[in-house]
Amino acid sequence: MNSFGKIFRVSIFGESHGNELGIVIDGCPPGIYFTEEDLYLDLTRRKSGIKGTTSRQESDEPKIISGIYEGYTTGAPIAIIFENNNTNSSDYSLFREVPRPGHADFVAMKKWKNFNDHRGGGHFSGRLTLGLVSAGVLAKKIITPMKVAARLLEAGGNSDIKNAIDEAVVENDSIGGIVKCVTTSMPIGLGEPFFDSIESLLSHIVFSVPAIKGIEFGSGFKAAKMTGYEHNDKYISVDGITKTNNSGGVNGGISNGNDLVYRVAIKPTSSIPKRQHTMNMQTSQIVDLDIKGRHDLCVALRIPPIIESVTAIVLADLKMIYQSYKE
Amino acid sequence: MNSFGKIFRVSIFGESHGNELGIVIDGCPPGIYFTEEDLYLDLTRRKSGIKGTTSRQESDEPKIISGIYEGYTTGAPIAIIFENNNTNSSDYSLFREVPRPGHADFVAMKKWKNFNDHRGGGHFSGRLTLGLVSAGVLAKKIITPMKVAARLLEAGGNSDIKNAIDEAVVENDSIGGIVKCVTTSMPIGLGEPFFDSIESLLSHIVFSVPAIKGIEFGSGFKAAKMTGYEHNDKYISVDGITKTNNSGGVNGGISNGNDLVYRVAIKPTSSIPKRQHTMNMQTSQIVDLDIKGRHDLCVALRIPPIIESVTAIVLADLKMIYQSYKE
Amino acid sequence: MNSFGKIFRVSIFGESHGNELGIVIDGCPPGIYFTEEDLYLDLTRRKSGIKGTTSRQESDEPKIISGIYEGYTTGAPIAIIFENNNTNSSDYSLFREVPRPGHADFVAMKKWKNFNDHRGGGHFSGRLTLGLVSAGVLAKKIITPMKVAARLLEAGGNSDIKNAIDEAVVENDSIGGIVKCVTTSMPIGLGEPFFDSIESLLSHIVFSVPAIKGIEFGSGFKAAKMTGYEHNDKYISVDGITKTNNSGGVNGGISNGNDLVYRVAIKPTSSIPKRQHTMNMQTSQIVDLDIKGRHDLCVALRIPPIIESVTAIVLADLKMIYQSYKE
Amino acid sequence: MNSFGKIFRVSIFGESHGNELGIVIDGCPPGIYFTEEDLYLDLTRRKSGIKGTTSRQESDEPKIISGIYEGYTTGAPIAIIFENNNTNSSDYSLFREVPRPGHADFVAMKKWKNFNDHRGGGHFSGRLTLGLVSAGVLAKKIITPMKVAARLLEAGGNSDIKNAIDEAVVENDSIGGIVKCVTTSMPIGLGEPFFDSIESLLSHIVFSVPAIKGIEFGSGFKAAKMTGYEHNDKYISVDGITKTNNSGGVNGGISNGNDLVYRVAIKPTSSIPKRQHTMNMQTSQIVDLDIKGRHDLCVALRIPPIIESVTAIVLADLKMIYQSYKE
Repeated sequence: MNSFGKIFRVSIFGESHGNELGIVIDGCPPGIYFTEEDLYLDLTRRKSGIKGTTSRQESDEPKIISGIYEGYTTGAPIAIIFENNNTNSSDYSLFREVPRPGHADFVAMKKWKNFNDHRGGGHFSGRLTLGLVSAGVLAKKIITPMKVAARLLEAGGNSDIKNAIDEAVVENDSIGGIVKCVTTSMPIGLGEPFFDSIESLLSHIVFSVPAIKGIEFGSGFKAAKMTGYEHNDKYISVDGITKTNNSGGVNGGISNGNDLVYRVAIKPTSSIPKRQHTMNMQTSQIVDLDIKGRHDLCVALRIPPIIESVTAIVLADLKMIYQSYKE
Repeated sequence: MNSFGKIFRVSIFGESHGNELGIVIDGCPPGIYFTEEDLYLDLTRRKSGIKGTTSRQESDEPKIISGIYEGYTTGAPIAIIFENNNTNSSDYSLFREVPRPGHADFVAMKKWKNFNDHRGGGHFSGRLTLGLVSAGVLAKKIITPMKVAARLLEAGGNSDIKNAIDEAVVENDSIGGIVKCVTTSMPIGLGEPFFDSIESLLSHIVFSVPAIKGIEFGSGFKAAKMTGYEHNDKYISVDGITKTNNSGGVNGGISNGNDLVYRVAIKPTSSIPKRQHTMNMQTSQIVDLDIKGRHDLCVALRIPPIIESVTAIVLADLKMIYQSYKE
Repeated sequence: MNSFGKIFRVSIFGESHGNELGIVIDGCPPGIYFTEEDLYLDLTRRKSGIKGTTSRQESDEPKIISGIYEGYTTGAPIAIIFENNNTNSSDYSLFREVPRPGHADFVAMKKWKNFNDHRGGGHFSGRLTLGLVSAGVLAKKIITPMKVAARLLEAGGNSDIKNAIDEAVVENDSIGGIVKCVTTSMPIGLGEPFFDSIESLLSHIVFSVPAIKGIEFGSGFKAAKMTGYEHNDKYISVDGITKTNNSGGVNGGISNGNDLVYRVAIKPTSSIPKRQHTMNMQTSQIVDLDIKGRHDLCVALRIPPIIESVTAIVLADLKMIYQSYKE
Repeated sequence: MNSFGKIFRVSIFGESHGNELGIVIDGCPPGIYFTEEDLYLDLTRRKSGIKGTTSRQESDEPKIISGIYEGYTTGAPIAIIFENNNTNSSDYSLFREVPRPGHADFVAMKKWKNFNDHRGGGHFSGRLTLGLVSAGVLAKKIITPMKVAARLLEAGGNSDIKNAIDEAVVENDSIGGIVKCVTTSMPIGLGEPFFDSIESLLSHIVFSVPAIKGIEFGSGFKAAKMTGYEHNDKYISVDGITKTNNSGGVNGGISNGNDLVYRVAIKPTSSIPKRQHTMNMQTSQIVDLDIKGRHDLCVALRIPPIIESVTAIVLADLKMIYQSYKE
């Protein structure tokens, strides 16, 4: 359940307040230069520290423990781990009785019969995305010359994002956002009809990222209001390049050579500083809830490098699968 | 690439104008009553024939060829096939040279090096969903008492759908739509954190259905404009029932006992009767394109039973996986 | 449960006395010439009809219903079905109460709660290997220039196989045998360390073939009695060719360029004409059992083309996986 | 390629001389008591230190880094790592040029284009089985009341095993052996017909263990010389217990309630102290080879706990899959 991919395959493990968390990457070709230094840029982009993100400060120091020899991938699985240092688990014990609205506290207890590690959200923590970002750095190398770039389009409905954050701080409340991801230099032919369509695989892994509520490719939800004549992208070259890109770069589940474009909706963090009401599940009383942990007011700020990473992971796998067809 | 699921697993095959197409369903528990008669209702809902759908008339007669004995599932894989009778392949030969805008013609040729069966869209045809609908009927039995219902909310941006279709017929153009799917009587605990989240698996299979451009769960894209205080669903019972359902019935990837709610955007069919321009890929000339085949003006009309089916397929698998944890 | 392979993937379905049985082959590259005619040779080799095999005469006429267009694979999944014509189910009703010793009758009833199709062994029938042999013909084309050849080494412990069969007919009893499979022109590098070792994948699919009791690679069980000095194969060329081939062509799970060699042990058919005793599971009485169905006295005679096929299926998948690593 | 299992799923990583190696176990039910202490017994059984095993002394101290909270499995993936301390990589540099006969040195270089970590055998090292043994301890708890026990039947063809080792030490040569594995208290119904037969899954994982050359179930290779009348196991109870156990506890791929019995052949270690000849792959000269590393003279001594573990891993998965069918 914690693995994804067919050839280039990732498996994640860990908890927010455990000793270490990490990822295992299987199926990576040998001979790719890959060291801890490669990871710093994207890990920093993912990191908290700017206004609107959690005050929990973690060094996020990656440790590659297998699969690399003298700086290069060997062909064997690559394991990368991160220590959890700045943990404060006392903040969380309450939530076993009084689950946070909008959070996984309640379902984790029910599904796992109270054996779940509830500290810091346990296995449901956004910290698990550290591994995804690490695998993404490697995947980005594999998919060259394809290039993935994601950015935050708006936060709290506001495209002036700095402004939106300032407001959220004043309101003591969290806000959502929209991230757009564009991959350029796409080859034709990645993806499969039906179950392994590009959209299927991308949406699968995108919804693995905590807080995502929606995804749309190309024209997306606007397509529902368009006519075929408007929506059809006209070919302007024998390479399949089209005048418009309502397709988002995908026809019939397969890349068509145009930019791969999609957008995702991110919900506002459920852990908010503002006082709210919830139910004490032991007593069935409605009680006040003041969340004291350290949380993001706008987790969407940290999502772009994660979205890039999961995109690269899917494309690396699809590229390798496509190569398997060619002699 | 043409299989989906872990325990309850479907594999589809076939082409629009081949002799037969079908599905193999593996991992179905024994002892479920399942006959051809059970399929008629949903196959008819999926069928063309009403205004706005293709004039190709197929009997869509299912033939269960394995896995059923004296009316009951045996435990062995269930294969169901459908004949293609009403085919007219002459309409399609042109598209090898002059690919239809918005259609898979071009990528199918490129990916499969011109060996693709282009007749009627070949393997990319919406007819492949016959198998999905059949598997869905079986899955609906497995997931009892859960109940899945999908309906068309709007077509061409118009919630008066009859009106929207009439307009499309006049305009000689196709239109898109939005389908909403609600599953009631959900248990708590289906789905897994991260890669096998309910949203991950549902979006994976939903984007396998041709023409889908977007999916959103619960509050969906609206969540991006909300605050955490607004978005958090307040608990009103110790069973996890909440006052609002912005979560769409899922927290942390796991069902929370509320209704499972999502919406999908369907693009307008790319094959339209209206004259359009495209490129002749041999000559690189822009040419007129008049599509003469029989196509849906509003394929969204036929999507609800398909969406119900793929939802039931995912839930059947997740239910069985959840049962595997319990002694 | 009824699927095997990562890229080149087969799914089988059907029963001995159902209407049709078959196979779906996914992940096959486009552009391979493949028609029903290609199948006749290996299907005939697998067929009964010679002394020592069942008197059930089936035409074994393959019908390719998808994935082929104008004689070539298209890239879409290939489904092949076979009709069951010469069935006589009355022979089998008894075995629900009085299971045949050594046969799957008993476990099928228990596992599938009496919903199993017991006629002719149902889904457990050796007829399911028709699909495997068909997929094998295609796989043999993919793995060119590798060449797989299997032959019966001995039957009933006798390397004069004609003699062994004659004796079995006289004794009214069935006999087992040993089949050896050799693949020549092996490239270096197929297979993976650990779970996807060549031996792992081959033994996995070989034990899917009914009646197999053991498998050994290269020196096999003799290795247990050898010293390292004797067992180590000395290199005689920089291409990795060795003087002896105790390795059976595999080191560390990976092909080493020498012939891939393994042997399998086949048990005597459990359905024998000779009277035997078994238990009536309703009454717990020991009763006489006279099996009247049509069965093989030496099923090992029919195993070589099946073993070749499953070998080719594994090698096709491994070849494609290896190609996925190369740009 | 480094993962195995459907529900209860293991992924291994690491190298002989890397910093750490380990395993990730996914799909484990919550609420099972599991601590480092539980691992000591089987890790010690697997360890070197007795006569005939390598002089490399590793503490083999397991560190559970995720998936356990307050001593119990949480439902999240369990990662266990081991440090490599007692490494001496200088012994190995030679083997890039002069590969050891019978070893993976040569294929690892070829497959992974010289990027392989060759130190101590790298990813091909038997040390990777530390993870398998750890997962096996957990799996043994899941499969209760089933009980797995493996033992060394003979070494170097000699059932007086102490004697066999003494002789090997004198000869300066390695020896192979045969291990038998018996699982008692088997339920009826584990395993699936065809590709997920018990024999298929067991042989798959057994051949992942380095040095295995053959596997046989129940009567095994002897079956090839038997008649059906001799081989058929007569029922002696309505629970399916039989007088003999030629089936090895499996019919049609499914457990029949009798003991699950199989034997594996282990080859003599390829790294031997005795001088041997090999080829220098740069110069194509035949050269003397004196291996100075620390290696097992009879690795078969260490195999029983590994075989038990992989058996338990398969049975845990099959038990969970079987439970998924039951409501």
